Amino acid sequence: MIDGKTMDVNEVDSAQGFTCPLPINNHERILLAHGGGGKLTQDLIQKIFLLQLKNEFLLQLHDGAVFSINGSRLAFTTDSFVVDPIFFPGRDIGMLAVNGTVNDLAMCGARPLYLSIAFILEEGCPMHDVRRVVSSVQEAAKKAEVIIVTGDTKVVERGKCDKMFINTSGIGVIEPGVDINSRRARQGDKVILSGRIANHGIAVMSTREGLEFETELRSDCAPLHGLVEAMFHVTKDIHVLRDPTRGGVASALNEIAASARVGIHLHETTIPIAEEVEGACEILGFDPLYVANEGILLALVAPKEADLVLAAMRKHHHGLHARIIGEVVRQHTGVVTMKTKIGGTRVVDMLSGEQLPRIC
Amino acid sequence: MIDGKTMDVNEVDSAQGFTCPLPINNHERILLAHGGGGKLTQDLIQKIFLLQLKNEFLLQLHDGAVFSINGSRLAFTTDSFVVDPIFFPGRDIGMLAVNGTVNDLAMCGARPLYLSIAFILEEGCPMHDVRRVVSSVQEAAKKAEVIIVTGDTKVVERGKCDKMFINTSGIGVIEPGVDINSRRARQGDKVILSGRIANHGIAVMSTREGLEFETELRSDCAPLHGLVEAMFHVTKDIHVLRDPTRGGVASALNEIAASARVGIHLHETTIPIAEEVEGACEILGFDPLYVANEGILLALVAPKEADLVLAAMRKHHHGLHARIIGEVVRQHTGVVTMKTKIGGTRVVDMLSGEQLPRIC
Repeated sequence: MIDGKTMDVNEVDSAQGFTCPLPINNHERILLAHGGGGKLTQDLIQKIFLLQLKNEFLLQLHDGAVFSINGSRLAFTTDSFVVDPIFFPGRDIGMLAVNGTVNDLAMCGARPLYLSIAFILEEGCPMHDVRRVVSSVQEAAKKAEVIIVTGDTKVVERGKCDKMFINTSGIGVIEPGVDINSRRARQGDKVILSGRIANHGIAVMSTREGLEFETELRSDCAPLHGLVEAMFHVTKDIHVLRDPTRGGVASALNEIAASARVGIHLHETTIPIAEEVEGACEILGFDPLYVANEGILLALVAPKEADLVLAAMRKHHHGLHARIIGEVVRQHTGVVTMKTKIGGTRVVDMLSGEQLPRIC
Repeated sequence: MIDGKTMDVNEVDSAQGFTCPLPINNHERILLAHGGGGKLTQDLIQKIFLLQLKNEFLLQLHDGAVFSINGSRLAFTTDSFVVDPIFFPGRDIGMLAVNGTVNDLAMCGARPLYLSIAFILEEGCPMHDVRRVVSSVQEAAKKAEVIIVTGDTKVVERGKCDKMFINTSGIGVIEPGVDINSRRARQGDKVILSGRIANHGIAVMSTREGLEFETELRSDCAPLHGLVEAMFHVTKDIHVLRDPTRGGVASALNEIAASARVGIHLHETTIPIAEEVEGACEILGFDPLYVANEGILLALVAPKEADLVLAAMRKHHHGLHARIIGEVVRQHTGVVTMKTKIGGTRVVDMLSGEQLPRIC
């Protein structure tokens, strides 16, 4: 990220394609930053996974895959959760695992139906922790109206994993007329953000670092399929949906800009953030645009429908703080810029290193 | 397991419901044996997972879940792989992960279609190991005729995982007329085993322990959907399919016997095993019936069709050594017995502890 550097929107045009000065391309070993959701994650995906596994589905680089079986359009997604600590304000790894996969399906425009869950447990992990997490899994599944239909459990020796890791995969069904795809971002589209940013990352980090604030900072972890359904009631023609988890709002928008070959311009003053979270970010030295979220989404919608979609979102309990935070622009293809509070314009680059390891 | 103890088939009837004398029910912490695929795994699943997540799908305790979406019957399955070491004779964790999930789908009677893959990588893991494993994943997917459509990558700090763990989940489609279910085991059904036992477990263990044999013992890791397809060509009315992975042939048959409330009786002399594997089991002190397999399956078929199914299996390259190894009997509900080589009859109980940790 480039902090404090300001430039004119038009000047930025020539900046496209610039990269971080760090040599990120030829690591001989896996770094923590390869899991950070930023440039190194992209690099690993592009240079190792896509190079070998290349196919039309993976190349979409979406939160899930969409395909048809006997005429039904289905979404399929997977996520492993390694959050540390496993319990944090706003709940735990179990709730995160269910909602994470529910949201990935919702971001494909699908109604989540069935989830799998696979545990990797560390020898010596307290049984009551397992019980507590499984109880959260059940509660989250019930709330999200999905069924955990299949599972797996592995145990590894003490010191070979960290208490527990969880994988959830999920299947959902996509209604006819719905076509969510990063590549559908169009010039003029409004960028809507459904709620306040950085809550999840800061809640986990403050627990991990033993920080205390006047009010407890809680993860925003929540299922978003209901909010998406409310948006579809207004129009099925939503172009892009994305939940800005690892790497935050900045990384998600950079991915969309790169994928659709468009520019995106944000207005910092419109980005909703809780005062205490903003304060915590300042103390911890984090740019909130790069901090992970687990209960908000970004939607790109044609301008003529944006206000109606926004109104519908605000009526939903997971969209009370929804705002239009920017728009898709003709200039600076692949680059995200932001008009800052003090009136300048800066580039909002993709996260280049590791900001918050094991945040989800 | 109860080794060497012999009794008459009819005597065994009264032994049903007996349990291992170890107090396995009230562990306060996770033990390695909770991941062994035996009694403690069952205990964990029953007392923690099923207690909370109870639903018609999970209660089937199958390798995967079967459900309908818009009239199509689909199978959905998940598996995490934590095998140690990640490279072993016969390939590596990547091939295992693809074939494991392909086989779980095939054991539901489904044609495998789409897989997800999620990596948890340890900081410091050599990039060429990642590259090598991903290359295996692609090769295995191609051979198994499935597409890896979606994925995820997480990285944890050095010492918080062991090089890499992989989760694969998968979706397959089930043809009309196919109804594979452990509960369908019927008195008289023949138990067919598709090939030689214990190859995978012994190959991994000998690598781990640095043992050398005259001929290299290789894992039998292979996709079995083609073999299942060949069997369906003879009859769609196969009652049960199961790949005896963790816990081996003994545990798989015990699960079937318990689930269908039938007895199963085996003939030791008919169970195919390679001479060098039998020798290795003796040296290492393993009962091959409990050793993990990754490329064989058990099928329960009505007696009138068993010979035809067997003949079809033997024509397939993954079924060359197929044999009828036993049958479903009226006596000793829930118990598996075996006529031993020396002519006695012994109970083949479920694995009660941990024999081979991290075998898959």
